[in-house]
Amino acid sequence: MGGNLAGRLLSRRFPKSERELVVGSLSTSMLAERFGTPCYVFDAAILRERIAAVRAALGERVGVLFALKANPNAAIAQLLHQGGAGAEVASGGEILIARRAGVPGDQMQFAGPGKDAEELAIALEHGVLLNVESLAELRAVNAAAVEGGTQARVALRVNPPASLTGSRMRMSGGSAKFGIDAEVLEEVARTAESMDSVRLEGLHTYAGTQTFDHEGWLANARFLIEQAEAVEASLGRPLTSLNFGGGFGVPVFDKDAEFDLEAAGRGLQELIAESERRHFVELGRYLVAEAGVYLTRVTYVKESHGKRFAILDGGMHQHAAAAGMGTVIRRPFPMVRASQLDAAPSESECVLGGPLCTPADVFPTAAGLGDVAAGELVAFLSSGAYGLTFSNVLFLGHPTPPELLVDGDDVHVIREGGRPEDALRGQRLPGE
Amino acid sequence: MGGNLAGRLLSRRFPKSERELVVGSLSTSMLAERFGTPCYVFDAAILRERIAAVRAALGERVGVLFALKANPNAAIAQLLHQGGAGAEVASGGEILIARRAGVPGDQMQFAGPGKDAEELAIALEHGVLLNVESLAELRAVNAAAVEGGTQARVALRVNPPASLTGSRMRMSGGSAKFGIDAEVLEEVARTAESMDSVRLEGLHTYAGTQTFDHEGWLANARFLIEQAEAVEASLGRPLTSLNFGGGFGVPVFDKDAEFDLEAAGRGLQELIAESERRHFVELGRYLVAEAGVYLTRVTYVKESHGKRFAILDGGMHQHAAAAGMGTVIRRPFPMVRASQLDAAPSESECVLGGPLCTPADVFPTAAGLGDVAAGELVAFLSSGAYGLTFSNVLFLGHPTPPELLVDGDDVHVIREGGRPEDALRGQRLPGE
Repeated sequence: MGGNLAGRLLSRRFPKSERELVVGSLSTSMLAERFGTPCYVFDAAILRERIAAVRAALGERVGVLFALKANPNAAIAQLLHQGGAGAEVASGGEILIARRAGVPGDQMQFAGPGKDAEELAIALEHGVLLNVESLAELRAVNAAAVEGGTQARVALRVNPPASLTGSRMRMSGGSAKFGIDAEVLEEVARTAESMDSVRLEGLHTYAGTQTFDHEGWLANARFLIEQAEAVEASLGRPLTSLNFGGGFGVPVFDKDAEFDLEAAGRGLQELIAESERRHFVELGRYLVAEAGVYLTRVTYVKESHGKRFAILDGGMHQHAAAAGMGTVIRRPFPMVRASQLDAAPSESECVLGGPLCTPADVFPTAAGLGDVAAGELVAFLSSGAYGLTFSNVLFLGHPTPPELLVDGDDVHVIREGGRPEDALRGQRLPGE
Repeated sequence: MGGNLAGRLLSRRFPKSERELVVGSLSTSMLAERFGTPCYVFDAAILRERIAAVRAALGERVGVLFALKANPNAAIAQLLHQGGAGAEVASGGEILIARRAGVPGDQMQFAGPGKDAEELAIALEHGVLLNVESLAELRAVNAAAVEGGTQARVALRVNPPASLTGSRMRMSGGSAKFGIDAEVLEEVARTAESMDSVRLEGLHTYAGTQTFDHEGWLANARFLIEQAEAVEASLGRPLTSLNFGGGFGVPVFDKDAEFDLEAAGRGLQELIAESERRHFVELGRYLVAEAGVYLTRVTYVKESHGKRFAILDGGMHQHAAAAGMGTVIRRPFPMVRASQLDAAPSESECVLGGPLCTPADVFPTAAGLGDVAAGELVAFLSSGAYGLTFSNVLFLGHPTPPELLVDGDDVHVIREGGRPEDALRGQRLPGE
């Protein structure tokens, strides 16, 4: 087993695992045999547990939106929607995924700094609330609504002052491509109010992702409420909707803390106790990360100058985050030897490499993983968020892995695996 | 205009550009109008010039293989094949692309540390030379050939001793997931020789990518020849094929040097003057990088705390390298204001952001680019290699941009642009 976090995840999320990793009631060796590797496996029970836990902690007065960017699979969005979640979408494509998942357009919010005309048309058609990021975009939204003969539902995304909160990846504060500076918010709100085809419903903010400090998160929420009060005073009418963002931290590396969901929920309920508005929190990683496993098999083992290398059939093109893409310090993801959890601990180490012909395709390996053998299964845990679709899936033309949803004894293919000939998809030779 | 390299590329590669960027004989504003943005545009004339220059420098006795990983578009592989290139492939999918491009299987070589059974079957079916990376793989190749009732054409990829050459991204040397350590090469060669269904044709090596030092590169080639002589002595027969790898450097950032192609070619021709073997060099970036442009349009311009932000309709999901993914120090790609190259230089700067809802989706901006306006075109030059397919194209569900091949006055769509509903491709809900 590799890393303390891996052990915690096993006992907490996959309690039926003994000699091998068991997702729901199904062994990963059976899944690998039946569906092939590499593949992504999601556990429906964990997804249900996560959305239920979040709703319980935040209370009935806070709507939860699933941020599809973390995992844009319609089956997962459907399951979370059945558990009470709406959708936070970031593109026209994500609106269509959420619709397929059964989420009504009026339970969706759409943020993103560069919404184009086609996306605005899709959003307006489905009655999606637009979290507007700039004055220029506000004008484009109004123009699109005029052209479509409809009213645009709008919230203004606020860019808070610098250093309001601490999160691993800041999404706002200081000068930013996201949101409208707090200093000009009232002015932009009045502009919105004056537009014929815009209905200003409220405000939105998003401080950053992977926040482990609930006090900082609540300070940001308090800031948004103050902004709402100022805008309401300026407009002389109440706003009806506030979206506090999300970014609740999920431990991914061994030293990561846990986010105190209960404290955040209690604090938020206190903050909104007197409010008549509707309130929202949007969460991606927090709902889906721990429900997902990336399952790979060792193709070859080789030695080079005294070091052992295990070449997996999965790689950075399917799980870029685990290969350290986008991070400066490459740290090991939680990983386990899925087909022999009980392997004796080993002093010796081996390097886990993917099949790609690039030195970047190496997974930082957890200490204590031990010497894996050809044919063994290696599973990356906490891989349900920012996995496949965060990766450069077309790089080197390998087939897309299937995605499986395990529900107790049942398993559903929720994304079909690809074929080598898919590498030609969309291509045309001149003259054809 | 942003950066000295951008100016050099404009005058050298796009000489018809005056007030705006012209690819071949076609203006980028016309291309953007007709095909939409973002899009990738490739210039056939530059591709023809590159393959001709390389073949002229290396001489008739060196075969040139186009490394499809740099740009796996069949139309580009076809054009380079018409110019005399074979193909270096890194997956079963790339074999199928190269076949579609008209490259015969016996003009392909397949490297990669994790070739799986399906890929080996495809390679054997087409008579592709397998550059074998380990003893374990050699055994798998022999088994696959026995099963297929055929002979596998094999070269052994050699992992040279550490520090033989200096390149920006080392692919070998020391302990590595690539290749067979030089120390055990003869032994593995004898094992190959003893296998019924393996025909050992020669050796392969690949020192690293983005090499600007031709002397280092030649030292590596000399090393491979010495290895070949040792193996030949050990087997008591000549080898027929040597692949020296590639990695000739292409300037991408302002301070990058130029690779001395002529010196490398002269040196290599001297090294092989006495040899009866066939010789190969494999090149990706060097053949295609400067032929490609990523063309985007500014959707919105906004100000935040005194800084100007231009939000482009293109982003890291389509050009991850330009957004600094995979690099530790994020440096600006060569970029130009394609629709107004003659804009007055400006002291003020603006930040170029993509449409994605992540702070990683920002392009490091070249000094002196100036204040771009909404509706303007911004083009990233030197973007023909490791562009679209190196990027996380599924992230946030945006449509794939079209790829265009401009040939003088003609333009061909060589990859169809996508649609928002493509975000659902391959997905299935449980019960469907």
